[in-house]
Amino acid sequence: MAKKYVYSFGGGKAEGNAKMKQILGGKGANLAEMTKIKVPVPPGFTISTEVCDYYYKQGKKYPKELQKQIDDNIKKLEKTMGAKLGDSKNPLLVSVRSGAAVSMPGMMDTVLNLGLNDEAVKGLAKKTNNERLAWDAYRRFIDMFGNVVMGVPHDDFEEELTKIKKKYKAKLDTDLTADQLKEVVAAYKKIYQKVVKKPFPTNAKEQLMASVNAVFGSWNIERAVIYRRINKITGLLGTAVNVQAMVFGNMGKTSGTGVAFTRNPSNGDKAFFGEFLINAQGEDVVAGIRTPEPISDLKKEWPKIYKELNDIRIKLEKHYKDMQDVEFTIQEGKLYMLQTRTGKRTGLAAVKLAYDMVKEKMITPKEALRRIEGDQLNQLLFPIFDVKAVAAAKIVAKGLPAGPGAASGQVVFTADHAEKEKKKGKQVILVRHETSPEDVAGMDAAVGILTSTGGMTSHAAVVARGWGKCCIAGCSALNISYAKKQITVGNVVIKEGDWISLDGSTGEVMLGHIKSSSSPVIAGVVENNAKAKKSSIYKMFMQIMAWADQYRKINVRTNADTPKDSQAARRLGAEGIGLTRTEHMFFEGERIWAIREFILARDKEAREKALKKLLPYQRKDFEGIFREMNGLPVTIRLLDPPLHEFLPNEEAGVKEMAKRLKVSPAKIKELVTNLHELNPMLGHRGCRLSITYPELCVMQTTAIIEAAVNMAKKNIKVLPEIMIPLIGTSNEFDFLEEIVRITANAIIKKTKSKVKYMVGTMIEIPRAALTADTVAKKAEFFSFGTNDLTQMTFGYSRDDAGVFLPEYVEKKILPDDPFQTIDQDGVGKLVETAVKLGRSTRRKLKCGICGEHGGDPESVKFCCKVGLDYVSCSPYRVPIARLAAAQAVIG
Amino acid sequence: MAKKYVYSFGGGKAEGNAKMKQILGGKGANLAEMTKIKVPVPPGFTISTEVCDYYYKQGKKYPKELQKQIDDNIKKLEKTMGAKLGDSKNPLLVSVRSGAAVSMPGMMDTVLNLGLNDEAVKGLAKKTNNERLAWDAYRRFIDMFGNVVMGVPHDDFEEELTKIKKKYKAKLDTDLTADQLKEVVAAYKKIYQKVVKKPFPTNAKEQLMASVNAVFGSWNIERAVIYRRINKITGLLGTAVNVQAMVFGNMGKTSGTGVAFTRNPSNGDKAFFGEFLINAQGEDVVAGIRTPEPISDLKKEWPKIYKELNDIRIKLEKHYKDMQDVEFTIQEGKLYMLQTRTGKRTGLAAVKLAYDMVKEKMITPKEALRRIEGDQLNQLLFPIFDVKAVAAAKIVAKGLPAGPGAASGQVVFTADHAEKEKKKGKQVILVRHETSPEDVAGMDAAVGILTSTGGMTSHAAVVARGWGKCCIAGCSALNISYAKKQITVGNVVIKEGDWISLDGSTGEVMLGHIKSSSSPVIAGVVENNAKAKKSSIYKMFMQIMAWADQYRKINVRTNADTPKDSQAARRLGAEGIGLTRTEHMFFEGERIWAIREFILARDKEAREKALKKLLPYQRKDFEGIFREMNGLPVTIRLLDPPLHEFLPNEEAGVKEMAKRLKVSPAKIKELVTNLHELNPMLGHRGCRLSITYPELCVMQTTAIIEAAVNMAKKNIKVLPEIMIPLIGTSNEFDFLEEIVRITANAIIKKTKSKVKYMVGTMIEIPRAALTADTVAKKAEFFSFGTNDLTQMTFGYSRDDAGVFLPEYVEKKILPDDPFQTIDQDGVGKLVETAVKLGRSTRRKLKCGICGEHGGDPESVKFCCKVGLDYVSCSPYRVPIARLAAAQAVIG
Repeated sequence: MAKKYVYSFGGGKAEGNAKMKQILGGKGANLAEMTKIKVPVPPGFTISTEVCDYYYKQGKKYPKELQKQIDDNIKKLEKTMGAKLGDSKNPLLVSVRSGAAVSMPGMMDTVLNLGLNDEAVKGLAKKTNNERLAWDAYRRFIDMFGNVVMGVPHDDFEEELTKIKKKYKAKLDTDLTADQLKEVVAAYKKIYQKVVKKPFPTNAKEQLMASVNAVFGSWNIERAVIYRRINKITGLLGTAVNVQAMVFGNMGKTSGTGVAFTRNPSNGDKAFFGEFLINAQGEDVVAGIRTPEPISDLKKEWPKIYKELNDIRIKLEKHYKDMQDVEFTIQEGKLYMLQTRTGKRTGLAAVKLAYDMVKEKMITPKEALRRIEGDQLNQLLFPIFDVKAVAAAKIVAKGLPAGPGAASGQVVFTADHAEKEKKKGKQVILVRHETSPEDVAGMDAAVGILTSTGGMTSHAAVVARGWGKCCIAGCSALNISYAKKQITVGNVVIKEGDWISLDGSTGEVMLGHIKSSSSPVIAGVVENNAKAKKSSIYKMFMQIMAWADQYRKINVRTNADTPKDSQAARRLGAEGIGLTRTEHMFFEGERIWAIREFILARDKEAREKALKKLLPYQRKDFEGIFREMNGLPVTIRLLDPPLHEFLPNEEAGVKEMAKRLKVSPAKIKELVTNLHELNPMLGHRGCRLSITYPELCVMQTTAIIEAAVNMAKKNIKVLPEIMIPLIGTSNEFDFLEEIVRITANAIIKKTKSKVKYMVGTMIEIPRAALTADTVAKKAEFFSFGTNDLTQMTFGYSRDDAGVFLPEYVEKKILPDDPFQTIDQDGVGKLVETAVKLGRSTRRKLKCGICGEHGGDPESVKFCCKVGLDYVSCSPYRVPIARLAAAQAVIG
Repeated sequence: MAKKYVYSFGGGKAEGNAKMKQILGGKGANLAEMTKIKVPVPPGFTISTEVCDYYYKQGKKYPKELQKQIDDNIKKLEKTMGAKLGDSKNPLLVSVRSGAAVSMPGMMDTVLNLGLNDEAVKGLAKKTNNERLAWDAYRRFIDMFGNVVMGVPHDDFEEELTKIKKKYKAKLDTDLTADQLKEVVAAYKKIYQKVVKKPFPTNAKEQLMASVNAVFGSWNIERAVIYRRINKITGLLGTAVNVQAMVFGNMGKTSGTGVAFTRNPSNGDKAFFGEFLINAQGEDVVAGIRTPEPISDLKKEWPKIYKELNDIRIKLEKHYKDMQDVEFTIQEGKLYMLQTRTGKRTGLAAVKLAYDMVKEKMITPKEALRRIEGDQLNQLLFPIFDVKAVAAAKIVAKGLPAGPGAASGQVVFTADHAEKEKKKGKQVILVRHETSPEDVAGMDAAVGILTSTGGMTSHAAVVARGWGKCCIAGCSALNISYAKKQITVGNVVIKEGDWISLDGSTGEVMLGHIKSSSSPVIAGVVENNAKAKKSSIYKMFMQIMAWADQYRKINVRTNADTPKDSQAARRLGAEGIGLTRTEHMFFEGERIWAIREFILARDKEAREKALKKLLPYQRKDFEGIFREMNGLPVTIRLLDPPLHEFLPNEEAGVKEMAKRLKVSPAKIKELVTNLHELNPMLGHRGCRLSITYPELCVMQTTAIIEAAVNMAKKNIKVLPEIMIPLIGTSNEFDFLEEIVRITANAIIKKTKSKVKYMVGTMIEIPRAALTADTVAKKAEFFSFGTNDLTQMTFGYSRDDAGVFLPEYVEKKILPDDPFQTIDQDGVGKLVETAVKLGRSTRRKLKCGICGEHGGDPESVKFCCKVGLDYVSCSPYRVPIARLAAAQAVIG
């Protein structure tokens, strides 16, 4: 028996079904499926992807069985439709569309009205009793076929059309009469002949085979190949070709066309949602010349059709078990479905749909989890702008989406000013070149933060994310003048007090006040607001998180530096702290003076004196964190940044420091100069500092262990994990681990405490990953600092890469920003290597990740794959991480 | 039969030999060997390292056979010596020394005069007829035994001695009489009793066994364990213990002691070389109280002894086939050899010894190559300071040894000044904070360059090394004031015109003019000087290089940016260019203005216009290099540094640029600010520049290929290899490779040339190494840029690591500076991975190294091991690389 290459559908029967996407493509498989379940679909047939595969493997030849199968199917179609291809009386018109298993822009798309020629056009005119319609269809077909199949520039046709419209003073295409359209057809044919060097084919089968050829040919044109390479689409046989009888929505007052969603894609409500146009083709809905009517109006106008459509809606949803995005056409009172596919949706809708469908017993909780993307879940956590208001807003600049949510406020340029305005009850956005630790109170007072320099790990970005506050960083297009109290960006001038709006999820800065809605989830979960807890969104969120926790295997921790952040994170589901950055504690109030005194000190004794002042602050911080995390592990990283970060940058700061520490300003400047580094990212920081100044390590260990001992006395269960940062060699680790143990054990012994602690390291330097087996001899845990690891593995400075990274992502040199989604081939390989090597030495080595990637769904899945014990992310990313961790298990 | 643990030597017989270092230790094996070949050695025995091994494996117990074997050997020794341990009439005194197979500081060293007690001391006095000698020996023994074996602080003894000296108004120890020494002995015993809580042991065997215990115990004390860990000494069983009869060089006018080398260790001359002291013990030679006489005087004074010693010298050299460093003692006219070992030597001596011994047919050329270290060979290539003059010089600061050799000159602070003084015939040292491209002429005029900032890859360092010129960089202790025309360093002020001297091999900056000798090798090889070619050093050098080339398998190329450097390198044996840095060509004269115009350009058109000006310069440079390297491959790297390196730093430069390019200084400043990067090392540079500005890649490719075509027309064989730098992903490479090929092929086609070229990449980013299999799909060669690879693998900025790297090496956290010797465990692992992955895709992938490591012997050996095809180093390191490559084969 001959191999089957063509699959028919129509008349309630179909040879394919929805599961056959691999050989019928997505579109073909769904057309077959709809036919099978008795949804009215214009009949047709699908030429399988195996033909495409054969075509390329055999040097652009077709299987010999093919022509006959196509011919048979045309005959069948002609019979079903009672019309004949190319017939001058009752011509069958078809559409030809490509369709692979995965949607793939770049390939040949669609030819409509195929089958028209000088004879058939007359038949169509007669059949439809609409000469104008027939000739309009004909000229559109010549344009489409000429352009898509034969490569005639569309503009050539368009130019001619404009000429003729001018001649007859027609404003719109629709102003042209049938006779004028005949003139257009004649002119189009000439253009075709001129470019193709052959006359326009009058034989309908010839038209069809040329279109089929063009579809298969388009599978391997450069932009399609590049698209597949870039999107890593592999394992496909090729594209299928769908040939389907044309139906017309523009055949008069009993015809029409529309698009609809089976539920509301915007908020997830269980209500039919869509639009339709009477006497129109699909293209007219898209073109936007006429305003479509809401689908509910159909009920009044054509109650029968509406009922039929609504029944189909219910049928499709039941069948596909998901919200569908459908296209339909009504030809002279008869309804046809042209397409169905899973509908795109907002975050809120995604959550509600998944939740509702479980309640409706349509899907399982597992399936519900599979359907919610992390970014969609995220939309429930933060204020979001009103969609319409945003669409109308003027975007003036784009920066890095450093902190989540949406915020509108009046511009202020100093932290002090932000605090004052806040007290007056105003909503402000703090705009700075960059923020520094002194700005923290003002940052807290502002509803959003906007900076012109600094990257995703700048001070502003890190602080804002920790708080779940909206922040756009590194918006380099802004020209900020503190003196003039204004921002210039292009021709726009924004003055102090002007309203601007920030979209923290896109990095867009917009003019004016844009309405936004706040999140009942955060109010309920983090702020413990009773009213919010009664909201349906809150309940959905809690249910979905509960489902996620049933499935996930990996733990989710948080990166938090304060008791407040720790509390928020714990409420959002964090199961411990994966990273406490102790340096953030050095900036507040008096502390900065102690650390500056330390930097200025000439000898160990003076340094120790300065550190003594810091000790009680650090101890108190740790006590607060231990209290909040009672019973959960807390990883504390020893000092990481280079010391110059604690010194003042500006003249005024230098003077203040000189005065306070009783030295000359020149001395301070000299210090600043001496500590200046060409590449601070690769400089004297992390463990390198503690090796030079072991007293630093001693002070921090003392603070951690004393805090632990004090809390343990209050019956709080403390599980401190001391993390030594920036280890590149096992010798560095061994050197400091010894100091930590001696210091810690002495305190534990002296206080007769039973506190247990661990000592481990951050793996963030490629060399540490490559030699992880020796590092793990002494290190009890690894925490992957994938921010720095990405910087060093790629050789990208996160602060500077803004110049080329967006271009790289745009040119698809990189699939994603590697600082947002972990680069599995390079950085991931190092992580995997380190886990394997580390566990070859220490079988039960605890491994986690504490870079920003800990809150990125794809990265979380990668972490599960390589066997990490936990991921750690900023408090407000914890829910996403929980969801992603569940998805990693569910698959 | 009982296992043998103790090996005797003496009376012309020995149970061990030189090959038994593993179980007898180095010292014990050589004592046995000398005994065997009838060299007079005081008899004794060695307790093997296997006892040490047993001792630790069995919980600090000895094999039960041991005591008997020791007792038997003592008896044998007593018989040989005709004396008895602890005897009051004729006491046998012995020394006890540790000695592992590898010399290892940190362990217990030596106990002398063992066997003395209140009885034996009398016997010794009588036997030697020297009461003072006997009591002096006794008090030294108590001190040594107490301190070394029992841990009594040496200072406790010293304090007591000082007290007694004061009491008797004795200035020196030797001023004390026998009776006074008896008082010292009594006091010492009290100290011993007080600390040890036991009386000083009078039983000689007890003394001996306690000492043996102490030696074995010292094997595992912390500092010895750390020493072995740090120096990666593994596979040793333990230490041996050598017990040997004491001989005394201080028994009067017919006694004496000395140290000697069998040839001159300073220049390699075949002449006996050493010193001796009459009536003295070994310690006295070291103490330096009396001035020893040259060994030649022994000939006059004791011709018989001299002859005997000279015969031994010849015998030992013949036997060991290498220059020996020996110790001897003459006791009452009888000669004893106490030690022999391979003598340390200068570079010149190493070369001459190896060369001469081949000529004398003592060793093979292979063995000669094995014996010359790269640094020793290097000493032949550069001026070196007179050893004595250096010893007397005042070192005022230490910087990085950035350029080789030695230089003395008068201080100048500007490049212009250097040129002027040079014209006057003066020798000057150019001192700058850092140098920049405008300083090149002045740098050429100076005999040496000294900078206060910048690392081993700073402008000054790279340029100087290329020229083989002495340079010290990053000497941060210097406070240079251009305004005051002086350097302040501590209390020292160095003014313009003052003489200073630089040792480029140590980084030491010294005051005053120090004599140095220049290198006939460079004069002969590079400068083609006929007279120099007649020198013996030149001949030796050429012979040794010829031997090396016979054995080595890896190619040696050079890093050269100019025809002049290419010529020098080729004469020194380079077999091609592994790295031409095109950016160095951008600085000279008019070129800098063209590149600055490029940077300032607003659009592609303007950029191309600027590049057009650069094209002829680049083409001409490449033509010159191709001409010099006729027939050899030339690897040319596309632009690498970030663009801001081409902009002026200072106000004057900004003004000049503004004037020249007809824009406002504010505009230039804005440009400088915009291009500023926080971590330029990880910024917008390398291939990232060419991806942003593909026209840059087009211009450089055009220059390379046009130059190649032009030279090919002149019958020069050109083999260009175009290298794309800083690749992190295969997409980057593929993107640029296509541009290179399109550009190059168009030129080749147009000119109908047959030039062949390769396109490859520098592997210097960890990610490229980790994904080398995909990079190698298109890349035809890999060149490892181990400078940057080391920076990123360790996370060290070479410019900034000066703050902690020296400390790291000192604390042995790192075994070596990883920028000098490749880090095999980390960076090396990446190199090895990349070679394997790359060749898994492209079997014959050409792999080389072009970082500074290409000129480091250990690194070259590593490169051979991992299968690289070539190493490439700066021109003046080529000979070292050739030697190291031969050694890698010889083993």
